Amino acid sequence: MADFQNCDSCISSPLELFERVTAQGEKVRSLKAEKASTDEIDAAVKLLLSLKVKYKAATGQDYKAGSPPVDFSPMSNNGPTTALDEDFVDPWTVQTSNAKGVDYDKLIVRFGSSKIDKELINRIERVTGKTPHHFLRRGIFFSHRDMNHILDAYENKKPFYLYTGRGPSSDAMHVGHLIPFIFTKWLQEVFNVPLVVQLTDDEKYLWKDLTIEKASEYAVENAKDIIACGFDINKTFIFSDLDYLGMSPGFYKNIAKVQKHVTFNQVKGIFGFTDSDCIGKISFPAIQAAPSFSSSFPQIFKDKKDIQCLIPCAIDQDPYFRMTRDVAPRIGYLKPALLHSIFFPALQGAQTKMSASDPNSSIFLTDTPKQIKTKINKHAFSGGKDTIEEHRKYGGNCEVDVSYMYLTFFLEDDDKLEKMKQAYTSGALLTGELKKVLIETLQPLIAAHQQRRKQITDEMVKQFMTPRKLAFDF
Amino acid sequence: MADFQNCDSCISSPLELFERVTAQGEKVRSLKAEKASTDEIDAAVKLLLSLKVKYKAATGQDYKAGSPPVDFSPMSNNGPTTALDEDFVDPWTVQTSNAKGVDYDKLIVRFGSSKIDKELINRIERVTGKTPHHFLRRGIFFSHRDMNHILDAYENKKPFYLYTGRGPSSDAMHVGHLIPFIFTKWLQEVFNVPLVVQLTDDEKYLWKDLTIEKASEYAVENAKDIIACGFDINKTFIFSDLDYLGMSPGFYKNIAKVQKHVTFNQVKGIFGFTDSDCIGKISFPAIQAAPSFSSSFPQIFKDKKDIQCLIPCAIDQDPYFRMTRDVAPRIGYLKPALLHSIFFPALQGAQTKMSASDPNSSIFLTDTPKQIKTKINKHAFSGGKDTIEEHRKYGGNCEVDVSYMYLTFFLEDDDKLEKMKQAYTSGALLTGELKKVLIETLQPLIAAHQQRRKQITDEMVKQFMTPRKLAFDF
Repeated sequence: MADFQNCDSCISSPLELFERVTAQGEKVRSLKAEKASTDEIDAAVKLLLSLKVKYKAATGQDYKAGSPPVDFSPMSNNGPTTALDEDFVDPWTVQTSNAKGVDYDKLIVRFGSSKIDKELINRIERVTGKTPHHFLRRGIFFSHRDMNHILDAYENKKPFYLYTGRGPSSDAMHVGHLIPFIFTKWLQEVFNVPLVVQLTDDEKYLWKDLTIEKASEYAVENAKDIIACGFDINKTFIFSDLDYLGMSPGFYKNIAKVQKHVTFNQVKGIFGFTDSDCIGKISFPAIQAAPSFSSSFPQIFKDKKDIQCLIPCAIDQDPYFRMTRDVAPRIGYLKPALLHSIFFPALQGAQTKMSASDPNSSIFLTDTPKQIKTKINKHAFSGGKDTIEEHRKYGGNCEVDVSYMYLTFFLEDDDKLEKMKQAYTSGALLTGELKKVLIETLQPLIAAHQQRRKQITDEMVKQFMTPRKLAFDF
Repeated sequence: MADFQNCDSCISSPLELFERVTAQGEKVRSLKAEKASTDEIDAAVKLLLSLKVKYKAATGQDYKAGSPPVDFSPMSNNGPTTALDEDFVDPWTVQTSNAKGVDYDKLIVRFGSSKIDKELINRIERVTGKTPHHFLRRGIFFSHRDMNHILDAYENKKPFYLYTGRGPSSDAMHVGHLIPFIFTKWLQEVFNVPLVVQLTDDEKYLWKDLTIEKASEYAVENAKDIIACGFDINKTFIFSDLDYLGMSPGFYKNIAKVQKHVTFNQVKGIFGFTDSDCIGKISFPAIQAAPSFSSSFPQIFKDKKDIQCLIPCAIDQDPYFRMTRDVAPRIGYLKPALLHSIFFPALQGAQTKMSASDPNSSIFLTDTPKQIKTKINKHAFSGGKDTIEEHRKYGGNCEVDVSYMYLTFFLEDDDKLEKMKQAYTSGALLTGELKKVLIETLQPLIAAHQQRRKQITDEMVKQFMTPRKLAFDF
């Protein structure tokens, strides 16, 4: 898994855009030559078109193959500015110029997934008999693939399992990293199913300037934060690729199956790899794909190869699983179902970069109450007005206010959230007051997390990470 | 390991040659852009030049980028015919138009390895106190890399280990497949060192139309033939990639290390992969590289990462180990040393293809005495003259006579072999008589192999293939 939030939000120059259009054109051609799936070609063509629009907006010229841009006014405002709002999303880059964040409705169309609508949320409530999690109610998990298959299976008493993950690029996790785990824990509880959590320490070793030892160490540290979310040890298996690959009779065989059925042209089209990338990166997507198949975990599922998988993850991970779903039927496996979340915004605003190396870009799980307070007060981008008078008169803008956005993630009380939205929008609630609510929400939440994490012993981590039967019979 | 003998000896058309020159030119460019090692670039440039010469010989025209050949006389004899003798050797294709077989002296220059000369053979004899194997005395193992390092280490009582392998593409092994194992067994005995044998069932699954199950099955069947060569169970570990990768704490980590340090451009240059190849093929070279490092076998070498490796193999496997030697210092490991053998010729002649699917192309380890006799009498290409009279007058040609070639591999008695060579060359010995000697050499050899193989139980195979400590302390 790439990080949950992994965006490099640099604004592209016209020349960079030109190169990107050219590269994307090549991708489309090779996908067609490759007779890739229609879904894949469509997605690539859509991206090509959107890049061409973006190119025209930035240069005032139509893209012409072989003719790099000339005489353009860099970042001129002459073109249609809406076209500049086109977002770029892949597992390593999430880029938007909009303070409201990525346009998720457009992303659904581009990726070919389905919206999680009221009807699906109602069905989840009906089937499980539980109030849907506020991440569902508030559109934080907003998109899916085949969730209705999972619910059909559940209604027919057929088993399924959950799979999510994390790329351990450092030992510093921030609150945004918790989103998929908080939601996965809820899913595990309401459906009572096994969960596998992949720590892609091999991916981080391949992509970053890290040793194998350091990547493994981060995996263990991250496992502690994941365990601290409250997962049931009898129903949860956490594994590091670097270790589990060397102790599973099924995992590598599934990786090889995927690797036989995906070409370099395809991963080039999906992930943008180039000829200068190392062969580890090029073959890695198969390693993230393989846990989608139950036979990768014979200790849990015995010889059952047809237990369906449901993957809750941030939408930037979808390219891995589009590839997985394309391959699955060709190697005799079920396609995994997916639930996609939106991205967690950086403190400085939804269009800026959140990075583990910038401690002020987010609230970290190791922050003290004082650090939380200072960071929010100093850095959280405000949708309020410049003066109290103007704010009282015109009101604040929740759509770009990061404190409000964070509250949609962490304040569970729907009524309180709605009241604050109204008060902030009307101008009755000031930015400082809104920030205070966020501070008072996050301080106890992080403190409780730290308290739970302190209880996690190395022995417990070892138990979670030992391949074993879980509390389910297959 | 690709098969020991894996040649597709089709003669290229001018257009195919044109495409090959173009592709090789791209390889050279990308290797340079990639700042690959000088050895690697030199090897690629040499191959490019030889392809250009071959192109000119076939078309009478100089190669011109972007201009495919026109008005050529296919396979015309106008060009310098010696250029047509340029051989093509990679792990999947061994191609020569010369009935004497590949020009190994040229190959040494092109690959940048060193000739096994009289001096080295004498040193091996001096150091081990044993008569050098007839494969060394007769130039069957003819090329090496760093063998003097191994001998230095041995003289200084420093340990080393042997690594060889086989690609289990079918359960039918032929006598040629035994060559590396016969020689490796001799090396193990005279040096008293551990041996690891890799069965690349994953490679065969990726390259061939095989299921994982079938590839694993072939691996076990091939292991029986290898064990029947007489390896010491206390000093030998045989492993299938598909199984061992899932049970070793060290193997995958080394694979990942190699995969991080080799780009697609590099494997394209070395192995000729294209964008349409599956990502499994593209990343596979790392899997054949990793057993060259002792930390891939912690059960044998404990935490020792610096035990030097010596790889006896056919010269077509050298590209894998050139890559390995290039990567080794960058990941903190020793470069493996190598001993290269020539190719085992097909019955029909050294320039024709030997294939497991054509039972008449070689002597198989399952052949009956009668089959051996019939095949040799009917199919072994003769260097003798058309009539007895002519043969008596002009003599036979040992350099192209397959029966004589086979005897150099399997007849251990130097005097007897030399006498036959003289008698055949002078015309005193007839082809039928020479074939009779070969038949009488191979029949008992194969029968004895079959006898030993029958004794190999599944339990013994399991023991050989169980990761365990061997009879050496590290």
